[in-house]
Order: sequence, then C-alpha cells, then structure tokens
Amino acid sequence: MTTVLISGLGLIGSSIARIIKNGDTTVEIIGSDPDDDSAQFLLDHQIIDQRADFAQAATQADLIILAGPVSVILRQIDELAQLKLKEQVLVTDVGSTKQSIMTEAKRLTHKGVAFLGGHPMAGSHLTGSRNGSIDLFNGSKYFLVTSSQTKQQLRDFEQLLDSANVDWTEITAETHDKLVSELSHLPHVVAATLVNSVADGLAHDPVGLKAAAGGFKSMTRIAASDPKMWTAIMMSNSQAIAQELATFQTALSHFEEAIQDQDEAAIYAAFAKAEQIRKSLDD
Amino acid sequence: MTTVLISGLGLIGSSIARIIKNGDTTVEIIGSDPDDDSAQFLLDHQIIDQRADFAQAATQADLIILAGPVSVILRQIDELAQLKLKEQVLVTDVGSTKQSIMTEAKRLTHKGVAFLGGHPMAGSHLTGSRNGSIDLFNGSKYFLVTSSQTKQQLRDFEQLLDSANVDWTEITAETHDKLVSELSHLPHVVAATLVNSVADGLAHDPVGLKAAAGGFKSMTRIAASDPKMWTAIMMSNSQAIAQELATFQTALSHFEEAIQDQDEAAIYAAFAKAEQIRKSLDD
Repeated sequence: MTTVLISGLGLIGSSIARIIKNGDTTVEIIGSDPDDDSAQFLLDHQIIDQRADFAQAATQADLIILAGPVSVILRQIDELAQLKLKEQVLVTDVGSTKQSIMTEAKRLTHKGVAFLGGHPMAGSHLTGSRNGSIDLFNGSKYFLVTSSQTKQQLRDFEQLLDSANVDWTEITAETHDKLVSELSHLPHVVAATLVNSVADGLAHDPVGLKAAAGGFKSMTRIAASDPKMWTAIMMSNSQAIAQELATFQTALSHFEEAIQDQDEAAIYAAFAKAEQIRKSLDD
Repeated sequence: MTTVLISGLGLIGSSIARIIKNGDTTVEIIGSDPDDDSAQFLLDHQIIDQRADFAQAATQADLIILAGPVSVILRQIDELAQLKLKEQVLVTDVGSTKQSIMTEAKRLTHKGVAFLGGHPMAGSHLTGSRNGSIDLFNGSKYFLVTSSQTKQQLRDFEQLLDSANVDWTEITAETHDKLVSELSHLPHVVAATLVNSVADGLAHDPVGLKAAAGGFKSMTRIAASDPKMWTAIMMSNSQAIAQELATFQTALSHFEEAIQDQDEAAIYAAFAKAEQIRKSLDD
C-alpha cells in the first residue's frame, strides 16, 4: 500500500488528492494543512484519509507532495532535509517557480532523497479545498523538472496521477521559469495593476467600475487570485518577472507613442498582430 | 409604420436589428453595409427587410442608427448633413467614443436635425452579423448623450429597443470618454501589447504560447477583437487613452520596483487591493 502525504490542501493540493483517490482508492492519503476547515472538509468527503502534522507524516510517506505556496515549499524542503525519511521516498512539489526550488532541493538530493520538480499549468481564480476538482488539470501541461528521481519513481508518479489527463512535459528549471514568467507571472502583475489603476482613476466617477463590461471582467479575472500565493511567487522569481515587466513596459511605451502621434498604421499593425496571435490559441 | 436605417451590419448593428424586429415586426429595417455577405445573411434570415445605399435610404428613414466604426460614423454624419432628411428624423450612433462624435454632430443639430449619442456597453471578441444576438446587451449599460432630440424621440428610441433589457444611463460625452478609456480602451491596448510582448519573448521557446493556461487566455481574449474597429477608437479618443496609459505605466513601474527590491509588503498590498476590488465585481 502506498502512503501519500499532501502538504497544502488548497485548490491544487486538494485536486491532486481527488485525482489520486479517483485512480486508486487503496492509496492512503495523509493531508497536512494549518487550516482546520480545509482539512475537515476533505476528511468529511473521504478525499483524504487522515490529517497529521507535517514532520510526523513525512517519515511515514512513500510520496510527499508539497502543494503550499512557494515560500512554504522552500521551508518544508529544509525541514525534510533534517528528518529521517523512508529510503525509497519521492519528494515532489507543485510550485509555480522552479529554479529556487530546485536549488533548495539539493539539500535533499545530497542526502540521497529523490526529488522531482513539478508544476501543473492549471489553476483558477477560485481557491481552497472546496473548489478542487479531478478535472482541474484536464488537458493541461504538467511540467516536470527531473533531478534525482529514478525512472521507476517517475513512472509511478505519472501512473498515480493518470486520471488527471495531463500532458507530461519535461523541461529545465530555467526554461520553465522564463516560460511561466511570460505566460503567468507577468499577466498576474498586469491584471492586478490594471484593476488598481482603473479603480483609482474612477474613484470619483458616480458610474465607475460598475459599468465594466465582459471584456474588462474577463481580462481582470485573475486579479482575484490569492495575494499570499502570488506574493510568494513574485519573491521567488523576481528577476525573471522584473525583466519581462521591463520588456512589456517598452512595448507599451511604443504603443502609447503611436497613439499620441495618431500613427494609424502603427496602431493598426499592433492590434492586427495581436489579433492574429490570439486567434491562433483556442478559446 | 416606422422605417429604420441601420448603417453597419456587424455585431452591434445586426444585434440592434434583431432586437428591433423582436420587439415589433412591423418596423421596416433597411440595412446598409459594404459587405455583401453580412447583408445577405440578414436578408436571408429576415432580420432586415431590405438592403440599400446609405444616402438613398437615409432620406426615407424615421430613425438612422450609425453602427459602423467611429471613423465611418464621423464621415456619415458629414454625409447626412448634406442630405434632405425627413423632418422628424432622429439620428443616433453606437460609437465607443462620444466627444468627437458629439462635436461632429453639431453639423446636424445646427440644421435642426435631432441627434442622440449612444453607446451600448457590451460587445464581444466575436465580430460580424452572424454573431449578433438579441441578448448581446442584456443587463448592460446603454449610455446616452442627449443633445437635440425631443423627449418623445428619446422615449420612442428606448421603447424600440425595449426588449434589449439594457440599463439606460444618461452621461456627458466627457465623462463617458474618461470612463470607457479606463474600462475598455486601456484594457484593449494592454491586452494586445501583452499578447505581442509575450509572443515575441517566447518566439524561440519550443513550448511557447501553447502552454498558456486559462488565466492567460481569459486575460487576452479581447486581443482577438477587430483591429480596424479598435484603431478607429484609438484615433478618436487618443488624448484620454494616452493619459490613462501613462497613469497605468506609472503604477506598473511602482510594482516593478517592489519586485526588484523584493519588497514583500508592497507586493502583497498591491495584490490584496486588486483581489478585493475584483471580487467586488461579479464574474
């Protein structure tokens, strides 16, 4: 029988618990989370089998999934490095940045503990264990940064999450962080800033934000994401994000110039390029 | 019997045609659009009764709705000022900017032709007559900039679009343009720039844009909008948009600084503010 410890029972952690239980009911899932309500909800629905203290459960686990914010993942890697874990244990994480985590994980791999970096490219502006779902990652990429895990451990892990229907994609930590800083981190900063800037600009308008139509709402939906989680991501990938932000600001300045100069051709070219690229992605 | 001329049979114009027909089948709708396909589709589906040349149809109409891009609306106001229209005609438009249109409309009102500025705050990244719908404006604000129309003409117009279920809201052209530059024009520039900047940044990445998850897609959906329409909007509201862009850039620079300084408290404060504001809007 396999014992899995999932630390962090929010949207991602609780979805992984559901996926594992859905695939194999004999797997024993121990959940660890400081939030009583999240843990109790998952216990009540038999999505996890027991709740335990992180350090205590870690020593019993065959698989340890670190599913908290990046800052917590980094701290827990340190904590694990000081514990006596099972010999064949695999430690993996779901953190949104990989370079800082893979660096920290050397503390484990130097001790012979197998580590596999992971990041499912899905999520939602919804948060919490109640919003988890076996379909959360359906059809999405699940990035893997291989390290000291054995081939068998890799296969077993993928097998355990088989019903998630993800596209397993191996990637280097560096390529990953560049990719997500573009596709996820930069957009979150931009969406949050747009909401704040527009709200400030319309603070004295009697109609104001209430007039927002579908376009504004759709564009800013991710600004409702958990600020704690996103602060941790910014802290752990700050260099790459600051660089993407600078590039984005330059592009925005060019657009602003074109508008100020009433340069119709340049404005049209920018909109037409974006239209073509965005239409090439599915809805 | 009322004769309505709708010039511009795209998403908005064709939706208005559907709404009017849905409310009163005896209204005669004449459609005018350079695109044969759009016009034929609406004729085939009896959404419009006939297709005609703009100038010719304008002289027969009791209501003229200008539903083309802002640049076309401006040109058509000039054209109407040179025609002999029916004495009781009401001219209205659906353009996304109002100051430039209301200024141009003085050419009509000086001649005693009634003009009413309008702007339904809805839309879609979809375009064209096929995607129009009687529900397009459902629950949204329909801004009205009153001018030389009579009370009766205003009532009749609102009555004609009664089944659209909009929230009629009178506003000044200046307040309107500030509002939409914040809620609509700025977001469109930002979304288009984000798509272009990220696509350039990932041009040499083998995974690239294909890894985009729901957040990026939702945020950039409006970048698939019609570039011709959006170029016209930029040209007609350039001053307000350039100003909002500058304010937005300043806010973005502050965020960038906080990330570079690893200023956790400032980063958290920005995300938390945005979360709270965005959650106060409905989905």
